[in-house]
Amino acid sequence: MSDEAGLFERLERLERLEARLAQVEDERAIEKLVASYGPLVDAGLPDEVAELWTTDGVYDVDELYMGSADEVRAMVTSDAHQGLIGRGAAHFLGPAHVTVTGDSARAVCHSLLVVHHQERYLVVRAGVNLFQLVRTPEGWRIEHRTTRALDGRAESRALLGRGVTGA
Amino acid sequence: MSDEAGLFERLERLERLEARLAQVEDERAIEKLVASYGPLVDAGLPDEVAELWTTDGVYDVDELYMGSADEVRAMVTSDAHQGLIGRGAAHFLGPAHVTVTGDSARAVCHSLLVVHHQERYLVVRAGVNLFQLVRTPEGWRIEHRTTRALDGRAESRALLGRGVTGA
Amino acid sequence: MSDEAGLFERLERLERLEARLAQVEDERAIEKLVASYGPLVDAGLPDEVAELWTTDGVYDVDELYMGSADEVRAMVTSDAHQGLIGRGAAHFLGPAHVTVTGDSARAVCHSLLVVHHQERYLVVRAGVNLFQLVRTPEGWRIEHRTTRALDGRAESRALLGRGVTGA
Repeated sequence: MSDEAGLFERLERLERLEARLAQVEDERAIEKLVASYGPLVDAGLPDEVAELWTTDGVYDVDELYMGSADEVRAMVTSDAHQGLIGRGAAHFLGPAHVTVTGDSARAVCHSLLVVHHQERYLVVRAGVNLFQLVRTPEGWRIEHRTTRALDGRAESRALLGRGVTGA
Repeated sequence: MSDEAGLFERLERLERLEARLAQVEDERAIEKLVASYGPLVDAGLPDEVAELWTTDGVYDVDELYMGSADEVRAMVTSDAHQGLIGRGAAHFLGPAHVTVTGDSARAVCHSLLVVHHQERYLVVRAGVNLFQLVRTPEGWRIEHRTTRALDGRAESRALLGRGVTGA
Repeated sequence: MSDEAGLFERLERLERLEARLAQVEDERAIEKLVASYGPLVDAGLPDEVAELWTTDGVYDVDELYMGSADEVRAMVTSDAHQGLIGRGAAHFLGPAHVTVTGDSARAVCHSLLVVHHQERYLVVRAGVNLFQLVRTPEGWRIEHRTTRALDGRAESRALLGRGVTGA
């Protein structure tokens, strides 16, 4: 191989490596974001939780629809949430399955809400969490998160499937 | 350093990077496969679950031995499984600990089976999952998965240890 | 661009790639270490568990303070722990949120302690785990791990927050 051809081939390999590593970094950034939600919300840190969302990002839970990062912040400071973590609670999210497509992504995971009750812990919800995320200048942010209880509803099962397959 | 030596050194560094990144990608592909099992089986998607295994892959659970991907598919469509997810269930798998050796790999993780019951959720099984995986032209697939309850049996504890140490 | 300038630019790109991949590898090594704790401790392997810590590493749990790897080893071989896993137990740790700074790192995750009891499983603890780690010639090791129950105490909530934000 001529020197020139060799240099060109190495440049291509370098570019492929950069693209592959960038994909790993994107997926990991989203995995970290998802892994930070439980600790931050159980710590009761309103700003840190709200900043996981875009300004107009949505967090749609069975019993509560939050239509902006401000409404997510208000949930964390609410008497209901502060009372929950004051008695003892774990929002325990499982490993996220992440799919990145350019500047948007989706992630899905199970979650358990475990609460402290009379020297014991009760699982008061098992749920599915489907995240739609967007790349912003400050990093990945949640555009839309849907959380539904796994109580037998077809809707919850559909969210689980869509999270992995995209369909 | 001569130009030629410099080029050679850079080529070696490029090749080491490619090998290191390939290992990260292999491990991550297996982590993703394991993270997809719970959502897919709770969604009740028979083909998507079956495709995690090789055609003649084994899924050996305490109460049910499945000797092929077809038998895994049949488990998902069975009245027993459809009844379980119709009432509400979470097959909640923990983060997988993965070890890749060339074209085969093993992974181990805990799992909880949480079922919906009268406005509450019960943990009906805590288990160990040991996966043997193989690289195929279509990606990593499960050759053998053993799932055992953590009910005090020495067998279950041995699977946990083997999953991490290989011994 | 001159040949020389092109070579120099490629060398810089190669070095940036090496640094980025090294960070991913560091974080992953710590994630794997954390993911190995539950399987190893539930398998009852004293040496393998102890080796996750530095020789003088600390494991500080609510009811038990271990001030060295030897004391961690002694915990695994103790009647209390062997009895627990002999009846059936899962130390189920969630995905770790890892932050590496040079040769030290911190990681935080939730954990559930699930025990087998009369054909059923009980969650007897939901906790927070904050790890301080150090890079050693043999790889990353735990310098200090604090585990606290999420029973409403402000201390536990503070550990969760500090694990993610560092503050």
